[in-house]
Amino acid sequence: MYALIMAGGVGSRLWPRSRKQTPKQLLNLISERTMFQEAVARLAPLFEAEHIFVVASASYVPAMREQVPELLLQNYIVEPSGHGTAPCIGLAALYLRRLDSDAIMAVLTADHFVERGDAFREALEAAGRLARQSRLVTLGIKPAFPSTGYGYILRDEKLADLGSLEAYKVKRFTEKPDLPTARKFLATGRYYWNSGMFVWRVGDVMAEFRRQMPELYQRLIEIEAAIGTPEEEKVLERVWSEVENQTIDYGIMEGARNVAVIPVDFGWSDVGGWATLLDILPGDGDGNVVAGRHLGIDTKRTLVYSPHRLVATLGLEDMIVVDTGDALLVCPKDRAQDVKRIVDELKARGEDTYL
Amino acid sequence: MYALIMAGGVGSRLWPRSRKQTPKQLLNLISERTMFQEAVARLAPLFEAEHIFVVASASYVPAMREQVPELLLQNYIVEPSGHGTAPCIGLAALYLRRLDSDAIMAVLTADHFVERGDAFREALEAAGRLARQSRLVTLGIKPAFPSTGYGYILRDEKLADLGSLEAYKVKRFTEKPDLPTARKFLATGRYYWNSGMFVWRVGDVMAEFRRQMPELYQRLIEIEAAIGTPEEEKVLERVWSEVENQTIDYGIMEGARNVAVIPVDFGWSDVGGWATLLDILPGDGDGNVVAGRHLGIDTKRTLVYSPHRLVATLGLEDMIVVDTGDALLVCPKDRAQDVKRIVDELKARGEDTYL
Repeated sequence: MYALIMAGGVGSRLWPRSRKQTPKQLLNLISERTMFQEAVARLAPLFEAEHIFVVASASYVPAMREQVPELLLQNYIVEPSGHGTAPCIGLAALYLRRLDSDAIMAVLTADHFVERGDAFREALEAAGRLARQSRLVTLGIKPAFPSTGYGYILRDEKLADLGSLEAYKVKRFTEKPDLPTARKFLATGRYYWNSGMFVWRVGDVMAEFRRQMPELYQRLIEIEAAIGTPEEEKVLERVWSEVENQTIDYGIMEGARNVAVIPVDFGWSDVGGWATLLDILPGDGDGNVVAGRHLGIDTKRTLVYSPHRLVATLGLEDMIVVDTGDALLVCPKDRAQDVKRIVDELKARGEDTYL
Repeated sequence: MYALIMAGGVGSRLWPRSRKQTPKQLLNLISERTMFQEAVARLAPLFEAEHIFVVASASYVPAMREQVPELLLQNYIVEPSGHGTAPCIGLAALYLRRLDSDAIMAVLTADHFVERGDAFREALEAAGRLARQSRLVTLGIKPAFPSTGYGYILRDEKLADLGSLEAYKVKRFTEKPDLPTARKFLATGRYYWNSGMFVWRVGDVMAEFRRQMPELYQRLIEIEAAIGTPEEEKVLERVWSEVENQTIDYGIMEGARNVAVIPVDFGWSDVGGWATLLDILPGDGDGNVVAGRHLGIDTKRTLVYSPHRLVATLGLEDMIVVDTGDALLVCPKDRAQDVKRIVDELKARGEDTYL
């Protein structure tokens, strides 16, 4: 079994901490360790270092190698540009197939929070066993609340008992629902959050690429032919520039055969923005999550990040205050998902210093 | 006529800009010039520099002299410690009486905003004429709204027409009212905000000190006896340490004879805190008052002061964000009057760096 950590993306919604050169997976958002270090550490008890692969853009690799010295350069699969999860996973599958045609591939990410590593690894092992039977396995998160921020997976009939876990056939993948729909989903007890974590044999997923995304598959084959030749990088660059954007969910999973879901519950969160951090990090007596120096009067459930200066707050509730030295963000928690609009505006103004 | 600018006090409610060593009157809060420079400039067309006196604590005098070089050292009356406006004004009256026993003394402050300087000086001149007739004259601000932050003056019968202004006898000084009371005051059309600006002959006010505050008066006489002797500073220090705190309103004005009020309207504000600055400074199209670099999305009626870094705000309304480099304040406008509590807490924690 091989782990594939997808570590592309910047995480604009964590601006001003996330920047082009320090994307969220390279930041110590949830602990002393960076998200990327956490992601590797979480896998270490289950995978040898040589079996942990990372897909990232070239510019992040030096920082990643510094953060996680045990991963060698050959463990990095460099994606020339981001085109969504389908091409990214296809490219990685291509490289893994060359290495080990019988490889089981666990698709993971560098920017998720996992509270209970043991349970996480137990689920990966169970998923690996199921994948040997040619199932495309997804980990479905038992929903803690009717989130409108995640896609959902509706389970079908039961497939197997896997120790303390169970596997089900998948009836349907759904897009992010509105709140009434999300509530209905939860009431059935048969819907799970789509975590974006998958386990399968490389051969099985490549077969689905060939069947469902033949154009992308052809491009992958074109790249494969160049691997190991002096033309490899040039071909990859050229072919990749023609690849169309697509997610693995739309491109493969929704139409795939033999899809299974294993419902899991290991304290998972997509660290999508400041609001999530305020939810998952331990707060003080007033529910404030503080990193740095804070003097709060009548301040509750507020996130304060300020390593450089004293932050005094008065009468704040459910707010986000993030100070990185050169830039400061202030917004209510319930607007934190729109932080990307600030980044977009900075781009539009050509304020590259802050990107 | 002599002007007396009371320039004691720190202005804690303007923290983190106001500090022990840079009190609010030494800050450029409302224009390029500091409050103190504004206060002197406002008087310059009416008073020669030798007739403008300043009461301040010794530690502020060097900065004040730098800001306003035209005022000489002899124009400063140094108060060893603050004991409220009554002792401060008594001490200044003592010095002015020695200089000119027939002096008219206009008591002013360094931390008020005056929109129309011409109208302000016209009122001072009118008050000076009335003071020659032994009236203790107060300038009463025609109230713009039912403020609960100011004391009020209730007028009695009309005393005189003074060009475009009028003078009334004063029936009563009142404390800061609650909102229903303030509304009633405004409905009568006979109440004015107590601006804390007074004009009188030094002899008249000294007579009131003798009559109403005999203990303080005795101490002032003790100081007077030492003026010009080698013991002056020592006596002042000693006597001043025994002086009790009192305001001129409670100590003198409420019980004084011959008090008159001149209702005025020259765009006056007590720059008491950040909320006032948000009210009086010109805002942009969204009503935001900005000094420094601000990127606001869905941000309205918010004050942003940040000379050192970019401030990005999202979904803020009626908020205060003040960044001084070493410290940052974030609070809703309607809590800005409580900023003093932050300063108190910093004192309690011994955080002298921020005081």
